Amino acid sequence: MATVSLKQDPAVLAARLTRAAETAAASDLDALLITPGSDLQYLLGVGGESHERLSCLVLPATGKPALVVPKLEAPGYADVPLAELGIEVVTWVDGQDSHGMVADLLGSPARIAVADAMPALHTLPLRGALPGAEQVLASPVLRELRMRKDAAEIAGLREAGAAIDRVHARMAEFLKPGRTEAEVGADITGAILAEGHTEAAFVIVGSGPNGASPHHSVSDRVIQRGDVVVVDIGGPISSGYNSDCTRTYAVGDPGDEVRETYAVLQAAQRAAVRAVRPGATAESIDAAAREPIAAAGFGENFVHRTGHGIGLDVHEEPYIVGGNELPLEEGMAFSVEPGIYQQGTWGARIEDIVIVTADGVESVNNQPHELVVLPA
Amino acid sequence: MATVSLKQDPAVLAARLTRAAETAAASDLDALLITPGSDLQYLLGVGGESHERLSCLVLPATGKPALVVPKLEAPGYADVPLAELGIEVVTWVDGQDSHGMVADLLGSPARIAVADAMPALHTLPLRGALPGAEQVLASPVLRELRMRKDAAEIAGLREAGAAIDRVHARMAEFLKPGRTEAEVGADITGAILAEGHTEAAFVIVGSGPNGASPHHSVSDRVIQRGDVVVVDIGGPISSGYNSDCTRTYAVGDPGDEVRETYAVLQAAQRAAVRAVRPGATAESIDAAAREPIAAAGFGENFVHRTGHGIGLDVHEEPYIVGGNELPLEEGMAFSVEPGIYQQGTWGARIEDIVIVTADGVESVNNQPHELVVLPA
Repeated sequence: MATVSLKQDPAVLAARLTRAAETAAASDLDALLITPGSDLQYLLGVGGESHERLSCLVLPATGKPALVVPKLEAPGYADVPLAELGIEVVTWVDGQDSHGMVADLLGSPARIAVADAMPALHTLPLRGALPGAEQVLASPVLRELRMRKDAAEIAGLREAGAAIDRVHARMAEFLKPGRTEAEVGADITGAILAEGHTEAAFVIVGSGPNGASPHHSVSDRVIQRGDVVVVDIGGPISSGYNSDCTRTYAVGDPGDEVRETYAVLQAAQRAAVRAVRPGATAESIDAAAREPIAAAGFGENFVHRTGHGIGLDVHEEPYIVGGNELPLEEGMAFSVEPGIYQQGTWGARIEDIVIVTADGVESVNNQPHELVVLPA
Repeated sequence: MATVSLKQDPAVLAARLTRAAETAAASDLDALLITPGSDLQYLLGVGGESHERLSCLVLPATGKPALVVPKLEAPGYADVPLAELGIEVVTWVDGQDSHGMVADLLGSPARIAVADAMPALHTLPLRGALPGAEQVLASPVLRELRMRKDAAEIAGLREAGAAIDRVHARMAEFLKPGRTEAEVGADITGAILAEGHTEAAFVIVGSGPNGASPHHSVSDRVIQRGDVVVVDIGGPISSGYNSDCTRTYAVGDPGDEVRETYAVLQAAQRAAVRAVRPGATAESIDAAAREPIAAAGFGENFVHRTGHGIGLDVHEEPYIVGGNELPLEEGMAFSVEPGIYQQGTWGARIEDIVIVTADGVESVNNQPHELVVLPA
């Protein structure tokens, strides 16, 4: 509900706002309308979510930006250097037409872009208030900025990566036979918070057959001796940057078939990470992960894309998927997370967040990649 | 990211779906399009948020409903009695046009309603896929259902209320002079989780002058002896229902002026709760809170509405605000939370969640309403 100030460097925010306006102009847009969410966090350094009262950054392609905000919520922007950024603040109170106030600031635009996260609750009234304007998504503009991380953003991703690594390092405390996935998940949630996150955004504990469902969460299934368990966890740290890391554990000896299949996965994940460098395409990283898995006969068991970009959102550009010919550039950050899933019995996945460097790759996750056999 | 199954009674869900379809028909709508969020949680009993891959319940005013869902995420709906509810499941994989699949299910509708929470990321492509259909918000339909809580929902609100009461009962452990609001807030977050919530959705610790900003969160301000501190906290429990409770504390003796002003607030909050009964209007409750505060000369210091509905969302209908002539009905649930704010020095607020009963009111929050003076 409340805004969360991240105390960003004003010069960094000013440069982002200028570039966003310039990119909007080059995209034939009259303005960007950005409600709370990761885009606003990027542009103004304030977190929080949209709710029923409209808060909206009105960023025209040319001219002075404005922040339309409920009077009661204006104090949440106290740490944003609004005057220094040249942003006019327009407050409103219950009973005023906040969407009409946005329209009044814009005149008669022909084409406006709205934040991808904007709820229909605001998208539809803004359309009604600006009936002559075509509405399009802001992501084609903002992904050009957000996809390439600056030094502060990379520092945030490193800090988040180290925090989730500390949680994985403690897994033997939590993951034991006889406990349910939900019990293990509750302990992991506590550890995610204790190790420096502000939220446990997702906690997947996929034991035995549940490990074969990549988007499983937790269940009341009791973990058995010999189970293979996929643990995929993460969330934001105070700066808003997210962690996301998967390791696969065995609770006691899982047997030779699991060890051999896991070795294929480990080699595939390593090959994909090693393929990362400026100029390589996103799809070439996907192919590098897929090839060894297919060669070992498990091609049909790797049912999802190899990775997703990460930053202020857990899933953002660039997506590491077949068909994405985007050439990687220094500062891009994404997951490399191949998996092998055996329907009805078990699954395994290894995931690191990596950053493209000037001449190769840096991983922000550094726990061992071997199958970790925990005491049973 | 992951869906969270809430294992609702199939008969309850079936009745909700039927009523939603009937209300849509009566509202001249061809269909409701409901993406993840509280509306989908209400209709199908699954939690989770929308993300970049479309999941959408397609509920036509007449005819068979369908759930369009990424193939990888279909297992998240395993606990929803989809077959029993007569819902067709349509899965899709990366590369398919998920928005076009929704359009194909609907034919040529003239008017469709989208969930208020639907992100523009899906609202705009659905508009593109159904160019002949007027898009409107689904809330006028769904609020008619969600505003009146059934027995299971009331049980959820009671459970959430008791959980947040236990956190307030422990406030002396956390709130001490010499600690920052942020430190106190971190401890409260831990207690909110420990006492049965799945998330600390909001934690306001407004000490001294920060208490005069109703939407303050936490800051690095160090709490002083004699400070008045507004603590407004809550979040969802596992069933999805939310708590939201405010108490005001004094850290050591706050002095007579604070005690006298607080007594006015306490009387106002009590008067407003006592005015709640079926047939009373929402605005009459607001007036009942406002009158004693104005009579004591603090009318200008009570700067917000008296309350908001609560359930699967922290803020939902009915809003307890001047101009809302809605007559209260049995099963409606909302906050009663007047405040008195002295800009630059201190503020106070008292908030309970109440439920309209057959002949009066029940409060789900039952910690004392007196100003709690903690040791300093």
